[in-house]
Amino acid sequence: MAQNFELETLNMRLKDPELASLDLHQRIQRALRGLILDAALGPGMKLPASRALAKSLAVSRDTVESAYVQLQRDGFIQRREGSGSYVCENIGAQLRGAARQRRRVQEQPQAVRQPGSGLSRRGRGIFDQGGVADQQAVRAFATGLPETRNFALATWERLQRQVLKDYRGNVLLHGDPQGAEPLRKAIAAYLNLERGAKVRPEQILVLSSTRQALFLCAQLLADAGQPILMENPGYFGARKAFEAAELLINPIDVDEQGIRSDLLQADRSGARCVYVTPSHQYPTGVTLSLERRLELIRWAAEHDKWIIEDDYDSEFHYQGLPTACVQGLDPYQRTLYVGTFSKTLYPGLRMGYMALPEELLPVFSAARSIMDGHTPQVLQLTLARFMEEGHYNAHVRAMRKLYAERRQAMLEAIERHLSGIVRALPPPGGLQIPCLLEPGWSEALTQQRAARVGIQLPGLSRLYAGEHQQQGWLLGYAALSSHEIDTAMARLAQALNTP
Amino acid sequence: MAQNFELETLNMRLKDPELASLDLHQRIQRALRGLILDAALGPGMKLPASRALAKSLAVSRDTVESAYVQLQRDGFIQRREGSGSYVCENIGAQLRGAARQRRRVQEQPQAVRQPGSGLSRRGRGIFDQGGVADQQAVRAFATGLPETRNFALATWERLQRQVLKDYRGNVLLHGDPQGAEPLRKAIAAYLNLERGAKVRPEQILVLSSTRQALFLCAQLLADAGQPILMENPGYFGARKAFEAAELLINPIDVDEQGIRSDLLQADRSGARCVYVTPSHQYPTGVTLSLERRLELIRWAAEHDKWIIEDDYDSEFHYQGLPTACVQGLDPYQRTLYVGTFSKTLYPGLRMGYMALPEELLPVFSAARSIMDGHTPQVLQLTLARFMEEGHYNAHVRAMRKLYAERRQAMLEAIERHLSGIVRALPPPGGLQIPCLLEPGWSEALTQQRAARVGIQLPGLSRLYAGEHQQQGWLLGYAALSSHEIDTAMARLAQALNTP
Repeated sequence: MAQNFELETLNMRLKDPELASLDLHQRIQRALRGLILDAALGPGMKLPASRALAKSLAVSRDTVESAYVQLQRDGFIQRREGSGSYVCENIGAQLRGAARQRRRVQEQPQAVRQPGSGLSRRGRGIFDQGGVADQQAVRAFATGLPETRNFALATWERLQRQVLKDYRGNVLLHGDPQGAEPLRKAIAAYLNLERGAKVRPEQILVLSSTRQALFLCAQLLADAGQPILMENPGYFGARKAFEAAELLINPIDVDEQGIRSDLLQADRSGARCVYVTPSHQYPTGVTLSLERRLELIRWAAEHDKWIIEDDYDSEFHYQGLPTACVQGLDPYQRTLYVGTFSKTLYPGLRMGYMALPEELLPVFSAARSIMDGHTPQVLQLTLARFMEEGHYNAHVRAMRKLYAERRQAMLEAIERHLSGIVRALPPPGGLQIPCLLEPGWSEALTQQRAARVGIQLPGLSRLYAGEHQQQGWLLGYAALSSHEIDTAMARLAQALNTP
Repeated sequence: MAQNFELETLNMRLKDPELASLDLHQRIQRALRGLILDAALGPGMKLPASRALAKSLAVSRDTVESAYVQLQRDGFIQRREGSGSYVCENIGAQLRGAARQRRRVQEQPQAVRQPGSGLSRRGRGIFDQGGVADQQAVRAFATGLPETRNFALATWERLQRQVLKDYRGNVLLHGDPQGAEPLRKAIAAYLNLERGAKVRPEQILVLSSTRQALFLCAQLLADAGQPILMENPGYFGARKAFEAAELLINPIDVDEQGIRSDLLQADRSGARCVYVTPSHQYPTGVTLSLERRLELIRWAAEHDKWIIEDDYDSEFHYQGLPTACVQGLDPYQRTLYVGTFSKTLYPGLRMGYMALPEELLPVFSAARSIMDGHTPQVLQLTLARFMEEGHYNAHVRAMRKLYAERRQAMLEAIERHLSGIVRALPPPGGLQIPCLLEPGWSEALTQQRAARVGIQLPGLSRLYAGEHQQQGWLLGYAALSSHEIDTAMARLAQALNTP
């Protein structure tokens, strides 16, 4: 540990690029602070008088004086009238070990510990399972991505300017954790008209995403270690949310009518909630039949269960109108409806919502206020106008037409390029098509070969619980033009046929 | 249950205002569906031929045909070649109870159940405690609100237009759950220069708020039923987040140097984290001394504890520069730094961040991806430019000057109008001033009298754990002009002095 003030050491510190953009007095203060923290200037050591240091550094005395004042204020040095400035003695004990550690870290900057003992059990669970890897760029054949290239950004920007002009200061303040009233009204009207729901604006909770809705459900409706029922196969994002809340997943098989009511009836796990995707079951694309919907509702009413209805891409139904949602058929207030704008507008908007049974509203709203407050008001109010003025319905209609064409292009491309490899199971709606691999082909092999030409084949098998896993892919097509689909499919076929 | 088709009943249904904005065929379909669900049209019942119904309703046959097709697709009716259309038999069993329930609900719409048995233990906990009630409008003397009326919205809008132009499609897609790289770089540079931190952009996690950061800490660093250490008195928002994660709060007293290290050393609860507000302790305003900072770091390093450093309004320090943050003094990577733009820009932005020890990044990032994905990229990239071009630092500097004046105005107004009632304890920084009530005055009494003139007096006592609760207020002043402060204070004084 140096016991004499070394001007050279200070000069070296002053050249540290990290300090480059600071004012001169800040640089001197920071450099001296660093030397004290590293114990290069030991406790009790005398610093040069400000006049002398100023001369040595060729700066004004005021500059050094400012640095010294700040060091004194922060408790690094003591200044004694008529005697000079000294590194504080009382921080010495705390610094000794730290200085050694600091040097060790500087010498071995790569030594990052593995998380483990420092995490909670639930934290370790999340670390072990990993998060949800969203597709951050358009790629063939990523699932769940809508077309964003033709979104009416100019209209959106115009409406946002209006909102900022009309509300000004108020949108910059905190908003209602339940969501802005104009947006709740627009969503309720939309759900009632387009989705056959039966909700009032007071039942709407505006959220940032479906995922936030599912995480809230998992936290508020079940405790760690308790079971939750989920379709098998089912949506991995939901599974992640439930697992993150330490729930145990009880898979319930799906058949060609949707989730099997007989298995729900037979369930004795004590689970209080079931998670379903009735419009287009994820990943099979099956629409839950009316009989099953009514059985589901009756089961929930009789046994005091909650139905979490994830209506994630129901807007994109290509054969007649989409079936009305479960929520609208349920007179018992057992259904928690979950909707999102990630598919109908764009994922980067980060806006989703729930329509909740009235008794659940206060607790969901309170939990949201604790977890992250609310969704930015500017975005909410802009979206409300986008809906009120009819742009939302127009956009969804245009996209439905576009996606129907792309779905057709996708089916034709699969037929043309991949016959003998996979069999498509065209669902009546949604943004992706499940495909089953023909005998002799495996997910692992096909994914590996596809990756060589930069094509991603999201596997089906990981969506199944238990042993009966289907080998296949779930292919997204909505974000790709018909031409892009055909080109990518030809490339894929070539890659698959090349050992 | 009606067994004959009653045209009158259908006609009444068609006039339901809920259906008013639908197309005609949708209205007919929805009305018939309603009658079936209510069992007004019983299972097996024959519907009129589409031609006949069209004539009765004076609409085209195609319109009725569309309605019938949709009803058939949804499973409500069966159509038999040459015989006609019938309400499906197989949904009868499910409908019978539901129809009764539907009628009961219609007759007693006010019968909302209390949440209770339907919630998880953690859900009930949140319901019992309530959420965080943010101030949604500028009012004297709400805490934690910055001035938003002079925010450079035009500059922000210009930068956002640039971002949308430059990135276009990409900002509409999903973003990195860790945050957009340009923003992480800007935040890291800011923290290193202005807050004396030592972080790389790779350590930054962009979040929606301080609250989300605290909720993540609570979930990932401790399990339900485990203790967490917190300053006493302390920030209620943090307490809510920890309680929502079912942690037990262990209060550690604060004195004039900040949180007491001797009590930390003596703690045997097994808590693995401590939550601190070192710059301006909430609510006392005390700055944690250097000696205490070093003791805190050493304690964390020796006992493998985490320090959650909430640096919520450190930018607003009015006497010299603010003290450098704990994170920059900690060579052991035990500090989780939490920052927010809610105070420096505006709360409606919903943007906060953490600077994390490297080992914690993967798990925090994964948890964020599960909980709600990420923060809107448009906002992140706009903020990055706002910082890169120097607008952020300029705004903070201007606000610091403004708030220093308002703080002075506030202290003078308290002195002028409230002497004998409260004693202000002016802190060196922050956006609020703690005031202690003089003997003879109580929080309850003063709050009640102030409420009569629309003035909110946030109480101090609720921020204390245990019995030693100070009676007083925490008064926010940053969002009010000096004139507004003085006027409100005069009004408050009059209200307080009026029995």
